Order: sequence, then structure tokens, then C-alpha cells
Amino acid sequence: MNKSSPAGRGGAHSLPADSVGIVKPQRLTLRRALPLDCGRTLDGFELMMETYGTLNADHSNAVLVCPALSGDHHAAGWHSLEDHKPGWWDSYIGPGKPIDTSRFHVVSLNNIGGCSGSTGPQTLNPATRESWGPDFPLVTVRDWVRSQALLADELGITRWAAVIGGSLGAMQVQQWAVDYPERIGHAVVIASAPRLTAQNIAFNEIARQAILSDPDFHGGRYHAHGVKPVRGLKLARMLGHITYLSDDTMRNRFGRMLRETNARRYTFNYEDVEFEVESYLRHQGQAFTDHFDANTYLLMTKTLDYFDPAADYDDNLAAAFEHAQCSFLIIAFSSDWRFAPPRSREIVRALLRAGRNVSYVEIESTHGHDGFLMPDPNYEQALGNYLRRVADDLDDNPTAPLPARPATCPHDAAALRPDLALICDWIKPGSRILDLGCGDGQLLRCLAHSHNVTGYGLEIDPGNVNTCIGAGLNVLQADLNDGLADFDDDSFDTVVMTQALQVLARPDRAITEMLRVGRQAIVTFPNFGHWRARAALSAGHMPVTPALPHRWYDSPNIHLCTVHDFEALCHDKGWRIVRRAALNDLRHKELLISAFPNLLCEIGLYQLERGRRTSHD
Amino acid sequence: MNKSSPAGRGGAHSLPADSVGIVKPQRLTLRRALPLDCGRTLDGFELMMETYGTLNADHSNAVLVCPALSGDHHAAGWHSLEDHKPGWWDSYIGPGKPIDTSRFHVVSLNNIGGCSGSTGPQTLNPATRESWGPDFPLVTVRDWVRSQALLADELGITRWAAVIGGSLGAMQVQQWAVDYPERIGHAVVIASAPRLTAQNIAFNEIARQAILSDPDFHGGRYHAHGVKPVRGLKLARMLGHITYLSDDTMRNRFGRMLRETNARRYTFNYEDVEFEVESYLRHQGQAFTDHFDANTYLLMTKTLDYFDPAADYDDNLAAAFEHAQCSFLIIAFSSDWRFAPPRSREIVRALLRAGRNVSYVEIESTHGHDGFLMPDPNYEQALGNYLRRVADDLDDNPTAPLPARPATCPHDAAALRPDLALICDWIKPGSRILDLGCGDGQLLRCLAHSHNVTGYGLEIDPGNVNTCIGAGLNVLQADLNDGLADFDDDSFDTVVMTQALQVLARPDRAITEMLRVGRQAIVTFPNFGHWRARAALSAGHMPVTPALPHRWYDSPNIHLCTVHDFEALCHDKGWRIVRRAALNDLRHKELLISAFPNLLCEIGLYQLERGRRTSHD
Repeated sequence: MNKSSPAGRGGAHSLPADSVGIVKPQRLTLRRALPLDCGRTLDGFELMMETYGTLNADHSNAVLVCPALSGDHHAAGWHSLEDHKPGWWDSYIGPGKPIDTSRFHVVSLNNIGGCSGSTGPQTLNPATRESWGPDFPLVTVRDWVRSQALLADELGITRWAAVIGGSLGAMQVQQWAVDYPERIGHAVVIASAPRLTAQNIAFNEIARQAILSDPDFHGGRYHAHGVKPVRGLKLARMLGHITYLSDDTMRNRFGRMLRETNARRYTFNYEDVEFEVESYLRHQGQAFTDHFDANTYLLMTKTLDYFDPAADYDDNLAAAFEHAQCSFLIIAFSSDWRFAPPRSREIVRALLRAGRNVSYVEIESTHGHDGFLMPDPNYEQALGNYLRRVADDLDDNPTAPLPARPATCPHDAAALRPDLALICDWIKPGSRILDLGCGDGQLLRCLAHSHNVTGYGLEIDPGNVNTCIGAGLNVLQADLNDGLADFDDDSFDTVVMTQALQVLARPDRAITEMLRVGRQAIVTFPNFGHWRARAALSAGHMPVTPALPHRWYDSPNIHLCTVHDFEALCHDKGWRIVRRAALNDLRHKELLISAFPNLLCEIGLYQLERGRRTSHD
Repeated sequence: MNKSSPAGRGGAHSLPADSVGIVKPQRLTLRRALPLDCGRTLDGFELMMETYGTLNADHSNAVLVCPALSGDHHAAGWHSLEDHKPGWWDSYIGPGKPIDTSRFHVVSLNNIGGCSGSTGPQTLNPATRESWGPDFPLVTVRDWVRSQALLADELGITRWAAVIGGSLGAMQVQQWAVDYPERIGHAVVIASAPRLTAQNIAFNEIARQAILSDPDFHGGRYHAHGVKPVRGLKLARMLGHITYLSDDTMRNRFGRMLRETNARRYTFNYEDVEFEVESYLRHQGQAFTDHFDANTYLLMTKTLDYFDPAADYDDNLAAAFEHAQCSFLIIAFSSDWRFAPPRSREIVRALLRAGRNVSYVEIESTHGHDGFLMPDPNYEQALGNYLRRVADDLDDNPTAPLPARPATCPHDAAALRPDLALICDWIKPGSRILDLGCGDGQLLRCLAHSHNVTGYGLEIDPGNVNTCIGAGLNVLQADLNDGLADFDDDSFDTVVMTQALQVLARPDRAITEMLRVGRQAIVTFPNFGHWRARAALSAGHMPVTPALPHRWYDSPNIHLCTVHDFEALCHDKGWRIVRRAALNDLRHKELLISAFPNLLCEIGLYQLERGRRTSHD
């Protein structure tokens, strides 16, 4: 399975079957000049790297994994059987894992400026023959991506099937998409942000101050003094660690447990650590100082602060992403307060504005920012489904232009739910559509297949979202009640919402929004004026009918109306009814076009347009 | 107005009319032994103090303001006309302000262990004739409250009308209520928590490590070395500052603005501060080190970590609060992530369990933890209404036992809304009730007045909540859809919900919960089976009637039912219908007890009990 690190040797029996096995870091020397954003140039540089899985004949299956702040080239597998821990992202990289090394050739590296062997503060400055120390240039995310492109040249990889990263790693992914649009097929941006907030910068600033004010720092030339700014670096890491964990995780893991004894000590001596959480943080901080370099830490916090791909485009992130050609998967974690989900949605909004293919998934997690490193079934499925699709497309047609086409429609149009089949008839081939509450993507798949339609689905259910992702659809995890503020005016030819109007908090506002972001809207809803509903209420009971199967108290249908009511609303709002249809059953296609629709139809279907008089509620 | 600091002298024209004016700190020497939790004893101690407003003849109008970590005795007014800033809580203390010095005598102090003149690390240790420094005992919130009780003795104040504080100050308030129940009339607990979380402790630990690892700390004997651990203390304060502000506040105040120039400097030298937020934090940190003492900072973070009034009661906070006799007002701020609203609700839950009088207000604010110091109309009104009521009660009957009785009912029972009048008839005098969606408290006030009923109201609207507080009612700001998890089984005789059933996400679960926390439930709702509703739907339209005045798409009524449907649910769930009534109009009291209620009544009223077979959904 994994040729570059044959797990078959020696005590392989002790390695899990889905591990990439024993791996060996490689050092690459790149003898090409690397101009940096700061104005300086590295004449050449070295990168530490690991690879997992086999590069195929046409070099089309390469995936780049970009490291986060403390991540290095050792992302998966084991360096020896004596290792205590595998690589930092071992849960997600391996044969059959989401980043599947039986299909992809994965490249993982230590960036320049790092401290795991790549050119950086700890390596030799050729000009002085001493280690660079604080004289190493302050590199940016753009510099890193430039160096990674040179690495790709060296490896003979013209184009990455995907570039993937979490946190600071995902910033490199964004920059790849903007700076080398033709060299990246898919961008997977996990637990990230389009740039830091003031709060993020403030935490970094305190971390830096802790290191800079450590008397052992010596202006960054601590090695010459035979010391290390251990106290400062430890403080910086402890602080970082708080921002990686959620409040809940800390509460569950440590609570207010006192260490060893239950008695308070009434001192604050260093030796007298009292609470478990203190002990844990000190241990984390101390362990970090053993293998991490203070100059690198300073550099990387500044790299984070500077990251801002919109800065070159008048602070317009969408303008930056207009350069991108790849498809995007954006993943955020609900309890991440370092780079919270709204930050990921800023990226999504800009990508929508730029007209890019994008899916967005918000993983329900208690792990905070660390969620991107932790095993989680939903997260694994989202990432796995997406990349499986990427690999399938490579197998189908490795040179096909991206974005990939959705798969063959699994549903025969005739077997479609009658309301969806009717909608298929109403939609013009080649148009752009938005499907609100798209479910498992049935309509979008059929439209893509038979009508060559492109578009996005909005869906709240994680299972449905993952199904859509596996089908190669653009799907955004969202609550319809939160509205369509992420979409610009006139972004779509048609906005569709089937059988969801009645579950919304404000159906009128929803349609107003549909007609803002789309030229046309198609809406279907259960008709409360149907004779079955009338008969039930006449008999003194709330209706329970095939179209309205719920009981009054547990029904998701909270704003029901009759066909007459709906048309009255259209009239009041000035929406033009382009077409209408009436179905008497969701199970059989049986149209009742004109005969007493308000009495006889169970499902009303309407195609609407903004009228001459525009009404924005 | 303010006799202790006559604002009439000198340039008083430049002081605002609602200022307490020029004030003078006082030093009190208490020659009484103060035993401390750590086992040591202070033979005597000094406290710095300020007072505002006049103490009345029977000493019943005294209010104690407890300081937070960096707050000292100077809470209001100005020390001189040259002062740049007034006291730290000047927005809230003054004539006509929420803590109204024209009615109350306000006492504000610097606690022991502080660094503003009270006995602490910087004052002389009588045993050594040198400053205490790190030898000063580590004091707890309980120690502070014990010292404040001795201060009250000294001032001739047997009982505080109210003890008030925010953050660490509010922890002292909680401890007062538990430790000296007979000496406190009202406890106002603002932006606080019942104890720190692991995350809170972690931040404190990093702050301490920053100070302890500063080489200028010298084991706390820095004064002897002629230095101060400025770098460590500055780091600690910068870190604290991040936790006081919300992410939003920082974004709005600083964004990612670069200082002076737009060019990045590509360095991390100390001099090269680039972002505005860095500059702000450094300034805040530096300014703090000018007036604050590192030993005090260490001590106070530990005081915070140790605070845990439940610890002495098997971790049962309710058991601790069972000792309290006072009434409580708990205030939290929506964007406070240091002590977030759920922490305040933990206090509320324990107080409910202990059967105490409590109101809870959640202020919508963007200011984070700092919200408790910032001007805010809603916050001012909540605090002001509460304390006005306290002052009014003192005027009425200064020796009356607390809690105060609600005011005379402003509504004649005959003028009550007919459904409420009927409910008044159904409720037994002297019972305990919970009113879900209590509005402005009309029903609760009438019941309290005419039926001697005690209880709580739940209400979501801030204006209504403040009206209830002003009426002396126990009101908890809450969303009914979040359920009644804060209440124990059988906490009430009757739980009432008028005209709110149909706006809930799950009416069936709501009633199940009502019958869990109460012995009986009274529910009123609009009858969708009324002939007007039936007639409308027969004609093909959703009904708009006097009882259902909204349109289908903007109606808050999302789960409507008929009287028959409701009774069918009662039957299915095994709820016993004790009594029922039907009203044909909310505007006139006209009862239709038995003739075709499902057809003729607009409002159904039901009194329910759990049946023999219990059903918990």
C-alpha cells in the first residue's frame, strides 16, 4: 500500500493496519533563489519532508499537507517501532483514512523558518557560518507557498490534486489557491480564518512579549550564551494552549481538581502547583520548550499576524479569490473560539461572491480549535467523502478540467418525487440555481445531470451535507432561518425551496430574500386549504393528512397557509406568479392545474419573479 | 445631597450634577484580631475607605460596594478638580444614579492584601518592621468578608441594606449572603461566577508564572532590591485585559489597524509595535505597573482561584445558599466570556433550589466582562429599579423583615384581563406559583397582593423584566423554549402559562415540564376550533380573528390547536383536567362553561394535574 515507508519490515505486526507504517524524513536541497516579501532573498534553502503513498505515473495524485504552527513534516506514521506517538495528523492520513494513502501521494513538510531541520533560525547562515538566529528573515505565508511551489517543481508535481491544512496550515491553502490557481485542484481549508482578529493578534503579542522579556532571550542570540529563553517560550505555549482548547474541554478534563491533596496550600510558590489544570499546562509548556525554538515561535506568530490575502486587493477577499480556479471545502468546528465558525463563513462568503465552487461544513465538536486534530466521525466523513470524490475524478479522467462534474444522476427523472420532477421541467438548462433545504441533493444531482445546471445547496442536517459532498455537489451547511445574507443580489437564475416554507420563522422574508439573490424563485408548500384540512377543522380537530402528517404539538410546520393566502401574499408583496401547479399527492404525479386548486391540491408549486414594484418587506 | 463630600465648595461648577463631587479617602484602624482561612491571624489591620451619601438615623440605609481585582476604595467622585478620571464605578454611584447616594449611604473600600493603602504586602509587618512583601498571608474571599464585617461593626452598621459588587466583588457579595445572613438585606451579584473554571484558573496561572519568572521578582522581595517585576506584571495585566474585552469590542476598537504607517516592518523587535491593539495592550499593561503591586496581583489571582462557597457544603451550592436570608439580583452580560451568563445561571439555579428570592437579568452587551463597568440603559434600569425598590421599602418600614412584599396591586382584580381574573379565582391563597411568560407581572402582582402568593415569573423581554424588578417581583430573564431545567421537581403549587402555549417549539414538552416542577398547571390558549377560525378556513383562508390577530406568515403562534385537540393530548399524556373554562373574548368577561366550547370559545383555560399514570413524554 505504502511504498515509500514499507510497513512490512520488522515488527510491523505492532502497527495498525491503517497506518502508513514506518516512515523516513527526507531532506531536500533547493538550489534556487527564493525572493521574500520582506525584500530579502534566500539564495537556496533546504526543506524536511515526508511522503506517504505512491505517486502515480502522470503525477496527478499528489496532495500537499501544510503544517500548522507546531506541526512539522512528520504528519503520519512512525519513525520507529519505539516511537511513543505517530505523526501529528495520523488519525487522518493513511490507507483507507480520509486522506487515503492508497489513492493519494501525500507530501508533508517543515516550512522554512521552522525548527525541525528546514532552513530557519537554527540552521547555518551561509554569510556568517553561524546559525541565523534572530537574523533569519521574517517569512510570510506567501513566502512559504512560494517555497512549496519550488518544492513541487523539484518533485515533478505540476499540479496538486488537493492542498490541505488546518489553522495556520489552512492559511497556506488559501494562499495557494490565490497565488498558483493553475497548480491546485482542490483546496481544503480547516479551522481557519481569512486573517487574524485583534484578539488573535493580542494573544500573539503577549506570547511574543513573554519571550522577548525573558532575560535568557539575549536579543535572540541565546545559543551563543549557552541558554534558552525557556520561561518565556513556556509561557507563550501555555497561553497558546488555552486558546486551542474549549472552555468545556478544560472543564471536563480538569474541572477544579486539586492535585495530589485536597488541601489548599495558601502559597504561590512555583513548586506549589495546586490545580490539575496548572500542572497540565506547565507540563505542556515545558515539553514544548524541549523541541521548539523561541526564534521560530516569534517568527510564526508574526507570520500569522501578517497573513491577509485580501490586503493586496483593497481588503476585498472576494477579489483575491477571483484568481482561484480550484474547488473549496471549508470546515469549521462549533466550539473553536480561536478561529470560530463565523471566520470560516467569511471565507465562504468571499468564495461565493467570487463565484467559486465551495462546500462548507460546521462540525459539532467540544474540542475547540484542537478539533481539527481529533478523531470525529462527522469530520472524517466530510473530509473522506470529499477526497474520495477527488480521487474518483482522477481515476475517471485525470486530465479533466476542474471543477468536477457531479456523478451520474442515480435517480431516473421519472422516479423523482413528483414536485421535484415538475421543478426539473421548469428550470432552464445551463442555469445557476440555489436549492434551499436541498436534503441529500436529489434535485441538484438530477438538474446537474440532465440540465447541466450548476449551483449550491443549503442544508442543515450533517448526514445530508456529507451525502451531498460525496456526490460532488456544492453544499453549505446552514440554517435557513439565518437567511441568505451570504449571497449577493442576483447571484442565481433560480432559487428553489421545496416543502420548507412552512417550517420557517418568517416565510415572507424568506421569499423576499430568494427574490433578491435569484432572478426567479420556485416555492412548494402544503396547502392548508385542502379539503382534508378543512374537513378536519370543521369536525373540530387540527388536520393530520398525508401532506401534513404531524400532530399539532410536534409539527415542524409552523407557518401554514392556503393556496389563496399564498397568492394574496404574492399580490401584496408585488411578486409576479410566472407559473403555478397543483399536486394532489406527493406520492403520485397527478396534476390538477385549474379545477378548485385551493380545495383540491395538497401541494402548491409556484414560480415567482420580482414584479415591477419591488418590495423588500 | 452628598454631605460627606460637599460638592458645593470651590470649582464645583465643573462637576456634573449627578456626581458625588470631591471625595476624601479615609483610613480606618481596626484593632481587632482577624483570623484567616490559612490558619494565621492578623492582630489588627487598616482599611482605606470612601463613603458617599448620608447614613440615616437608624443606620439602615448603608450599602457596601465590594471591589473587583483592580478596583480600590475610590469608586465614585473626584479626589480633586484636577483629577483626570472619577472613581472606577462613577457611572453607577451618585445622586439619582442606580446606586443613589441621595437615598443610600455607600461604603467602598480597599481590601486587605490590596495595594492602595489597606494592610497588605506593601504595608509594614509589625513583627519585622519591614514591609510584608511575599510574607503577607494569602487571604480568601471569606477573610475579606470577615474583615468587612469588622468594618461594619466599627461604622455602627448592623445590617447592610444591600451588598453590591461585580466580578471578584460579586464573589464577596455571595460570601456575605452565606456567612452573615442576618446582616445583609439584598445581594447584588454582577458579572460573576460561583467559582472559577479550569480555563479561568489557567489564565490566572499564566499571569502568575509571568510574574514569578520575572528575574526582578526576587521571590517577592523586589523592593529590597530596588526593582519591580514590571515585565511580568505587565504581561499578567495584558493577558487579563484580553479576557475583560469581547472579541467584538477588540475588533471594533482596533480591527487590524497598523500603527502610524501601513507598511509591515518584518521584525519583532520590542520597539516595532505594529498593530494598534498591541500598542493599546502595552500601554494598559505599563500604566498598570505604575500603581499596582505584583505581590497583590499574585495574591488576588489565588483568592479568585480559591473562591468556592460550595466547597464547605459537599460541593452543593444550594446548600450554601440555604443559609442566606437576603433577596438576590443576579446580572450577567451576553458577551462576557470570562464569567459568561451560564455561570451566573448556576448561581440562580442554586438560589432557586435553596428557595431564595432571586431575579436574574441578562444584559445584551458587546463589552464583554467590562460590561459591568460601562454605561448601558438596560443595565442601569435593572440595577436602578431594584435599588429604588430597596430604598422605598426602607422608607416604608425600615425594620420590616425582608424580603420585601410586592407593592399594592395597581390593578383592581375586576379590571384584570378576564383570563387572568379567572386564574386569580383558581389559585389558593398562600401558594407558591411560577408564571411562565409573566409579561409586566400583572398576574403575579395581583396574586401577591390579594392572595398572599409568592413565586417567580419567567420573561424574555428586557422592558418587562425591568418593570417586574421595579415592582419587587422575582423575575428571571429566560426563553421559555429553553425549558425549566433550572427548577427542581415539585418546586411550586401551580405553574401558570397564559397565551404562550401556541408560541412554543414543543407545547407538549412544556406542559410535561410544568407538571414536573409544579403540582398543578394552569394553561390558557386560543382555540383554533372557534367558529371564526373554521369559517375562515372553510372560505379558503387562514383565520385572522380577535384572538388570532396575526397573518399566517408573521404570526408568533406556531402550534395552534382546538379545545378538542388539547383535551385529546391531556388524555394521551395522562394529565387530569381539574377544571376548565371557556372565554369567548379576551376583552369581556363572558363565560361559556359548557355549550359547544370547541365551537364557541376563543380562549380555553385549563387547570391540570399529573394523572395516576405519569407520562414524561
